[in-house]
Amino acid sequence: MPDQDLPVVFAYITAGNLEEGERIGRALVEEGLAACTNLLPGMRSIYRWKGAVEQAEEVVLIAKTRADRFDSLAARVRALHSYDTPCVVALPVTAGSAPYLRWIASESTQPHD
Amino acid sequence: MPDQDLPVVFAYITAGNLEEGERIGRALVEEGLAACTNLLPGMRSIYRWKGAVEQAEEVVLIAKTRADRFDSLAARVRALHSYDTPCVVALPVTAGSAPYLRWIASESTQPHD
Amino acid sequence: MPDQDLPVVFAYITAGNLEEGERIGRALVEEGLAACTNLLPGMRSIYRWKGAVEQAEEVVLIAKTRADRFDSLAARVRALHSYDTPCVVALPVTAGSAPYLRWIASESTQPHD
Repeated sequence: MPDQDLPVVFAYITAGNLEEGERIGRALVEEGLAACTNLLPGMRSIYRWKGAVEQAEEVVLIAKTRADRFDSLAARVRALHSYDTPCVVALPVTAGSAPYLRWIASESTQPHD
Repeated sequence: MPDQDLPVVFAYITAGNLEEGERIGRALVEEGLAACTNLLPGMRSIYRWKGAVEQAEEVVLIAKTRADRFDSLAARVRALHSYDTPCVVALPVTAGSAPYLRWIASESTQPHD
Repeated sequence: MPDQDLPVVFAYITAGNLEEGERIGRALVEEGLAACTNLLPGMRSIYRWKGAVEQAEEVVLIAKTRADRFDSLAARVRALHSYDTPCVVALPVTAGSAPYLRWIASESTQPHD
């Protein structure tokens, strides 16, 4: 099945703590921007900032959505996020259980409220 | 190296608890449907079900396999899983350490029992 | 935006324990081979080795870098790693917040020391 028939991506997002991850993950589902979000706590981020290598406790949020909803999702994450330049990228899905992919597509197609 | 020479995918699967994740992850390796599975405990899932936003504790299972074994792997996950519509999708791998990719391909090529 | 304008990949690496994951994750950032690494502790790996199914505690390390830096990153991981055949593969990124992708590209372009 070619990609254009499987318009699903997994967005990989990071947040500063569990509260922020839950708040963003819940908002995306409530607003129909993602069918489901998976929050992985206890992540340690290592990065360069202003020349120094820094380390911070963060969380990973995986948001499952239609590919054509990704830009709206990313804009919403930036609006909700405490960081100036949050991590929000799309990992493509190239195959999957058909009923599951249909569920993702149907639950992330339009606003729910 | 083009994708057709790197026939490896990482399947992203969720399970309802650690026991289910271990049971499915072990079965996939025992049956030669995956070379390796990585189980990430402590995930929180947020999703819409029958109109309401629900939250549940789950686990993530990453299964490393040949792309041409994915459909068999997904069918086996559905048979072993407690959910009617489990999450099982393929994330493509576009590059990798050659000996590691060869190991994945050789260990997920044929049934072991 | 087509893929050739988004030369970012997320490398999926596993390490034998938290110390090894932090050591490799920090080295990749210090050496300009990745802009950022995300360490997920507490992973359980299930795999076949010499015919038997084994289980081990490991950690996952996600390294965010330019696609054209992946081969150098993978070679460095192999040099730093305690395993003979470590897991290091590239998951493609097909979309993302533009300022974040620019940050990844600028921080993983050249050696820092």
